[in-house]
Amino acid sequence: MYTVCVRDHIMIAHSLNGESFGPAQQLHGATYVVDVEFRRRQLDDDGLVVDIALASQALREALAPLNYRNIDLLPEFVGRNTTTEFLAKVVFDRMASSISEGRLGASAGGLTSLRVTLHESHVAWASFEAELAPR
Amino acid sequence: MYTVCVRDHIMIAHSLNGESFGPAQQLHGATYVVDVEFRRRQLDDDGLVVDIALASQALREALAPLNYRNIDLLPEFVGRNTTTEFLAKVVFDRMASSISEGRLGASAGGLTSLRVTLHESHVAWASFEAELAPR
Amino acid sequence: MYTVCVRDHIMIAHSLNGESFGPAQQLHGATYVVDVEFRRRQLDDDGLVVDIALASQALREALAPLNYRNIDLLPEFVGRNTTTEFLAKVVFDRMASSISEGRLGASAGGLTSLRVTLHESHVAWASFEAELAPR
Amino acid sequence: MYTVCVRDHIMIAHSLNGESFGPAQQLHGATYVVDVEFRRRQLDDDGLVVDIALASQALREALAPLNYRNIDLLPEFVGRNTTTEFLAKVVFDRMASSISEGRLGASAGGLTSLRVTLHESHVAWASFEAELAPR
Amino acid sequence: MYTVCVRDHIMIAHSLNGESFGPAQQLHGATYVVDVEFRRRQLDDDGLVVDIALASQALREALAPLNYRNIDLLPEFVGRNTTTEFLAKVVFDRMASSISEGRLGASAGGLTSLRVTLHESHVAWASFEAELAPR
Amino acid sequence: MYTVCVRDHIMIAHSLNGESFGPAQQLHGATYVVDVEFRRRQLDDDGLVVDIALASQALREALAPLNYRNIDLLPEFVGRNTTTEFLAKVVFDRMASSISEGRLGASAGGLTSLRVTLHESHVAWASFEAELAPR
Repeated sequence: MYTVCVRDHIMIAHSLNGESFGPAQQLHGATYVVDVEFRRRQLDDDGLVVDIALASQALREALAPLNYRNIDLLPEFVGRNTTTEFLAKVVFDRMASSISEGRLGASAGGLTSLRVTLHESHVAWASFEAELAPR
Repeated sequence: MYTVCVRDHIMIAHSLNGESFGPAQQLHGATYVVDVEFRRRQLDDDGLVVDIALASQALREALAPLNYRNIDLLPEFVGRNTTTEFLAKVVFDRMASSISEGRLGASAGGLTSLRVTLHESHVAWASFEAELAPR
Repeated sequence: MYTVCVRDHIMIAHSLNGESFGPAQQLHGATYVVDVEFRRRQLDDDGLVVDIALASQALREALAPLNYRNIDLLPEFVGRNTTTEFLAKVVFDRMASSISEGRLGASAGGLTSLRVTLHESHVAWASFEAELAPR
Repeated sequence: MYTVCVRDHIMIAHSLNGESFGPAQQLHGATYVVDVEFRRRQLDDDGLVVDIALASQALREALAPLNYRNIDLLPEFVGRNTTTEFLAKVVFDRMASSISEGRLGASAGGLTSLRVTLHESHVAWASFEAELAPR
Repeated sequence: MYTVCVRDHIMIAHSLNGESFGPAQQLHGATYVVDVEFRRRQLDDDGLVVDIALASQALREALAPLNYRNIDLLPEFVGRNTTTEFLAKVVFDRMASSISEGRLGASAGGLTSLRVTLHESHVAWASFEAELAPR
Repeated sequence: MYTVCVRDHIMIAHSLNGESFGPAQQLHGATYVVDVEFRRRQLDDDGLVVDIALASQALREALAPLNYRNIDLLPEFVGRNTTTEFLAKVVFDRMASSISEGRLGASAGGLTSLRVTLHESHVAWASFEAELAPR
């Protein structure tokens, strides 16, 4: 199995609902350093897992609607707790859509799975990974 | 699959038995930067893999009996080689016990596996990972 | 010159005023991984620059009023741009006060300067450093 | 599952063929920080996944023919695109050979899989992982 | 003293002349992760050391003529050994020019010094720092 | 001012004397990741701050007597507290001696200062820096 990973980051505000969050129930924020791992069993004709330039561009586009925002105000997150692990899944879904829509190039159809990791500090991170639906 | 990781560290003295260890047969020591990854298939009702505050507390408690010790003197390690990979399993077992005893909260029953990694330097680390017994 | 550094972190929300900030004028947030470096010319009688336990405790107390907050709402920051470099100075001032008030122990009087660094992502950080007023 | 990882690095020149590589079609270069992860289900009699000294030596030997070279000139790579992911497989194959030839010691026969990761910058890396053929 | 640092990277091929370089006399390459630190005594009216967006853009432009190149072929480096420390000075000079030409904005006139660091691997880096000429 | 830095590490056991050390009064240990920074105002004829191969070799030799040891037993440390900052000075002195004895080559006479940093964990480090005596 081959993997390629690209990194970007976002800076967001949000709050979390539930007693278990303690002071994080208040409006606060986070820098998320975001790693996206692309996986496939065979390299494409260029010897690649994915075109890194396209992958980085797609990641930037996936993150843009969240970046420099108070994400509590985004309609899609109303009533949801935007924990780090939840957001990893959000980024996963957007990257999976980019792939299925062909924005990472034709050969990206050979990708079999993705993993998205959000580093929230030097002592904590969360990720979501899953197989990609065959095309 | 979702993963959440928390980090802590310990500073211990020990020695290793066997010719293959060369100078590490002498009493020496290590800082282990310890990462514990918690995994589950679905988030809990709060949108969490695990309550990070409880997880960090449980990790601190799991590490406390080792921290600032010459672990050659701990009865549980007599006759054992406390290699980095062996210690990763020790921490795994303690974290798995914490979960099964309910110390990470009721929803931690949804955790399916753990991975414990001990970083011993900038050029070497070891880990142990396994499924958790269903409760 | 001897230096000792300790690390902690905070997660805050804020916004920045001025066209040059572009999208960062919106309410967003950041994780700041905070390093405080303590400097002195001679070690104290214990062979220390500073008692790390006291230093870490003082850092935690200095950061607590900011942590998990929308710092736009803190009276002390009204009308100020809470840039990373500005916040480095805020933490510096609080740590300098802790030292002058004796909360880092008597021997901390031998400290001659501090540097506070806030890492805001994997690609940017800011710091403030200065001499400490002699006591 | 136990894992042990060792790290080394190489500095190479190369070029890549294909329009999708853009400016990387020109002769340029890279530092690859190389991590090799060794995996097995049970520790050996010394409590080890692998003898780190032998593993590090084998990694150094695997990397030596590439290090400080323009790898476009190496006969084995003629007509191939030496992408980061391709090179991860090259290092994997050499490490797998070292194991099967016994150069990591007799107990290395218990290893079940390897993962090789090449970090090419602070924002990108690639890896190859596979099971090892049983001996 | 305030400092702000931004990071980018380049991937280049080159060779070094002189017996002390051993195998690095051969054409090889490097990834340089480049940090530029900007320093000043007082923040500007926006509370900034430097406009990070402009600084990052200037750094990208300073690095572009080197990136994805065999820098042995660049006329400016003929007869010079492009060691990491030498290249740190090259980037310093370009960034200093950007500042003096006003490309980092009017308030960048308040900058007093720069430091440029090139990380060539996980075990080695080099830097050049100097005061900036007053304008 | 130019700087070049090389990195190595040691793994030692020790104990610390004095109530302020709390549990660290017990025999325990540490991994120290050691950075040595070499500084000079002008590059030598090869375009270097220092010959990295010689510098790395000298660092390895400076560290060897400490590595894989209980340093409480070393005669030179009897009655001393081997804190991280104290050990930074020990390594500094050994590196300064290597330079003055010519083991880093003739051109190393141009070095003006050194800084030695010992990273003891992901959250703490200490360093010692000083000018080198002119030769």
